[in-house]
Amino acid sequence: MSDRTGITVETLGQSLLTQFPDIEFVTRTLPFVTNQVAAQHAADVIRAARAEDGVPPLVFSTLTDPTTQYIIGSANEYVFDLFGTFIEPLEDALGTESSHTAGRMHGIRDVTVYERRLHALNYSLAHDDGVSIRDLGEADVVLAGVSRSGKTPTCLYLAMHYSLRAANYPLTDDDFATGKLPPPLAKCRPKLYGLTIVPEQLSRIRHERRPHGIYSTIAQCRAEVAKAEALFKAENIPYLDTTTVSIEEIASTIVRDMGLR
Amino acid sequence: MSDRTGITVETLGQSLLTQFPDIEFVTRTLPFVTNQVAAQHAADVIRAARAEDGVPPLVFSTLTDPTTQYIIGSANEYVFDLFGTFIEPLEDALGTESSHTAGRMHGIRDVTVYERRLHALNYSLAHDDGVSIRDLGEADVVLAGVSRSGKTPTCLYLAMHYSLRAANYPLTDDDFATGKLPPPLAKCRPKLYGLTIVPEQLSRIRHERRPHGIYSTIAQCRAEVAKAEALFKAENIPYLDTTTVSIEEIASTIVRDMGLR
Repeated sequence: MSDRTGITVETLGQSLLTQFPDIEFVTRTLPFVTNQVAAQHAADVIRAARAEDGVPPLVFSTLTDPTTQYIIGSANEYVFDLFGTFIEPLEDALGTESSHTAGRMHGIRDVTVYERRLHALNYSLAHDDGVSIRDLGEADVVLAGVSRSGKTPTCLYLAMHYSLRAANYPLTDDDFATGKLPPPLAKCRPKLYGLTIVPEQLSRIRHERRPHGIYSTIAQCRAEVAKAEALFKAENIPYLDTTTVSIEEIASTIVRDMGLR
Repeated sequence: MSDRTGITVETLGQSLLTQFPDIEFVTRTLPFVTNQVAAQHAADVIRAARAEDGVPPLVFSTLTDPTTQYIIGSANEYVFDLFGTFIEPLEDALGTESSHTAGRMHGIRDVTVYERRLHALNYSLAHDDGVSIRDLGEADVVLAGVSRSGKTPTCLYLAMHYSLRAANYPLTDDDFATGKLPPPLAKCRPKLYGLTIVPEQLSRIRHERRPHGIYSTIAQCRAEVAKAEALFKAENIPYLDTTTVSIEEIASTIVRDMGLR
């Protein structure tokens, strides 16, 4: 439960629950618990869940208001309370009082920062799949890889989460014919990062999208992947195998490898 | 610091720091602290920061391995340790041991779930801006609103974060002429959610994109917004003013209002 979007508390709770992989949890999020009435309602939800299951639920909370914290704390013995737990030690460490205002983690804290994020998102959408290769110079990072190697989701995540202008360029047989970097990429070489993928997985993904033709055949996928990886190696471009890696892991690895923070 | 992407710990730390709005914090993320060597390196970074600033830094950690936790704990007095703090009370509550494995919060935990997310993202990209209105029937939610009211970023966030297939449809003067819902929207009415925006803000955003022509004039923006809001009201479509609201807040409000979890 949260007094804002619930996104932080979902992350917190889900992270902790991943440490208990053998238990199947049923989760429910109560966002926008902004006042005592909402807190009483949330407390009722907790009591109802407890009555239904016969065991007290685990409650994760990022409530910041002491009164609503108290109402929830009284409703259940298992309350894992982010601010309640950490805010006092933090106040001690900083030698100052906290504001106890509703979480602004996912609000618009700074208009300039927020607009940079929207610009990054618009840029990344406009530069998806090599659509607009004129102004790659404005990109923070340019991802290269064969079709369906994970470039688009990664670019969108880099823009959404890290406010980076992320362009991407699909490597095709035309590019491999020369054995060199295509000119638009050669010009932005320090920003280049490669994505690759196991051919079998690539073939499966492509098959879902376009089941007929050579596009999704394992032979075609093997050939493209081999040529792309050879190009990355020859040109000394850092690259990552995305086969078993989530969008978040790909994005955070790129940010770290490219020193983008 | 984190043994995986660092995304959870950044959320945790930033959330707590928002409670101290008067202090300007310099942050640094150390992801992929996966072993003792990496932990020793991270401890060196902490000690260097401390020496440079003359005060101990605040360290937020989602390390799960007791040995690396210990190394970091020994390097600094202020360590706010998510798993170290909450995992024991959680073990007590659940009556079982935790796995102490590296955080899998942002990894691929379940291939089916992960593929649903990628499908949602592909769907939302393919159904952006009314591009493909044939199969809105497959959408989980359809956002309607005038151009630049926040539909695209919200759809991408709904897909990326909530794995929802989110389509969007731009309302234009052609739609307003009839005073009724355009046919593609009328067919998916229970999935409809409206976005609106203050005309002055809309004009500013449109002006950045296309400074000339009536598209960005305040008169045009006022007229379009008034007609869109009148349509939402007449057709009883829930809607939200996005003017001062972040993408996360818009998305989580829609998810709650539409009962999409």
